[in-house]
Amino acid sequence: MSFNGKPIKGVLLDITGVLAESSAEGDGQVIFGSVEAVKKLTDKGIQVRFLTNETQRTRRNLMEKLHRLGFSMNETDIFPPALAMSSIALEKNLRPFLLVHENVLPDLAAIPIAENYDSVVIGDAVDEFSYQNLNKAFRVLMASGGPLYTLGKGRFYREDGELTLDVGAFAAALAFAADREAIVCGKPAPNFFATAIKDMGVRAEETLMVGDDIVSDVGGAQACGIKGILVRTGKFQPQDENHPNVTPDKIVNNLAEIADIIVSD
Amino acid sequence: MSFNGKPIKGVLLDITGVLAESSAEGDGQVIFGSVEAVKKLTDKGIQVRFLTNETQRTRRNLMEKLHRLGFSMNETDIFPPALAMSSIALEKNLRPFLLVHENVLPDLAAIPIAENYDSVVIGDAVDEFSYQNLNKAFRVLMASGGPLYTLGKGRFYREDGELTLDVGAFAAALAFAADREAIVCGKPAPNFFATAIKDMGVRAEETLMVGDDIVSDVGGAQACGIKGILVRTGKFQPQDENHPNVTPDKIVNNLAEIADIIVSD
Repeated sequence: MSFNGKPIKGVLLDITGVLAESSAEGDGQVIFGSVEAVKKLTDKGIQVRFLTNETQRTRRNLMEKLHRLGFSMNETDIFPPALAMSSIALEKNLRPFLLVHENVLPDLAAIPIAENYDSVVIGDAVDEFSYQNLNKAFRVLMASGGPLYTLGKGRFYREDGELTLDVGAFAAALAFAADREAIVCGKPAPNFFATAIKDMGVRAEETLMVGDDIVSDVGGAQACGIKGILVRTGKFQPQDENHPNVTPDKIVNNLAEIADIIVSD
Repeated sequence: MSFNGKPIKGVLLDITGVLAESSAEGDGQVIFGSVEAVKKLTDKGIQVRFLTNETQRTRRNLMEKLHRLGFSMNETDIFPPALAMSSIALEKNLRPFLLVHENVLPDLAAIPIAENYDSVVIGDAVDEFSYQNLNKAFRVLMASGGPLYTLGKGRFYREDGELTLDVGAFAAALAFAADREAIVCGKPAPNFFATAIKDMGVRAEETLMVGDDIVSDVGGAQACGIKGILVRTGKFQPQDENHPNVTPDKIVNNLAEIADIIVSD
């Protein structure tokens, strides 16, 4: 089990665009060969964790969806940003205004409900990204002077064949207007990768991340000393192969291809 | 007619927050002393032009509103970004998707209506800044690879006492997601200031800009060699007095104060 001659003991997998294509309705479509690829890795004793910036579902909903698509993993193998955000909010005693998808609220249930907001947390709120709600979040930032947290900073994703704005775009809008940096909770934040690596009990240099987001997945992993593999599925765009700032350790057609390389090396 | 010992022959005035406070309904409220201040300047033979990033009304509507508030100026003394955008679109033969307030459409009427969009123009679309419309604009950018024009890059404005997101925030969202710079048409674009100065027939160093936006009005003017005066009306915030990048030539309580300085010096 190796890659470029180096032993691989842990693999981090993005979910949307690597295991399955996204869909607004239903579970989306499994990406050809990915169910077998994950099984191949775990059968060989490789630690696998699922590192997602998904903020439209709870961890449990995500697991159930993936089980219906044919995957088998435990709920605790899935790392979504909402759980990490929940820990941060409790640790810092925050009273954030939440502009997130209602489906992700259970993962944030530990955060106290308050009206005297001192911060903002945004996730991919989809239709809730209305002019009114964005203004409400903006006014909390201006009145409180508090921090803006974002559950990921993806630019866009592909859903039902169409490119769709991701949370990063709305974080950019609020950050620009309120004149402060958005604090990322989720990929590419280094502590998000670190939590998953610690859970696997492996070292960064023995780990490989597979994703369809050249910046958040591949660049984020590489910044932590993890090998970054780009797949040509999901929201992959041809120009990603010549990205000005990020050069993947390898570009493959899909997860099946890199899984074969790891187990046969 | 001078300022700091230098002769002043032309004055550029922002409208919202300098002449009048904004309001979602009706004409808003005239700012104390501003009607008399404009009259004082023009009576002394100073050229006055109105340089606005207003994109919710046509030039004619703006003039009519200002007349109702007690000001007297010609329609051609008002410079809104939509007119400048219209010239650019014709010159470059663009077929832009327009995400703008419907009230400003008459100023953009010269732009051909097309479905095969090759660019995007956004203005302060207010309620039209829906998740659906932002995604539509984003998809035009991604499919065409074309430019994103924005009618101003203001962070926010004050309306009916509340801070409200301005077009700059939504331009930042689209620019981030589509990974390209938004091209500003309006303040602080240098050619926008240049057009008004040319119309007055004065030189930049004989001109003074009065605005409530520390970056777009004051910083934008100074970058063109025009003196930049910040008023403590409109969206002015106390921290603007210690802005990290822009130091106004003077900070005054309102337009009346700076008009008195100019005419009495």
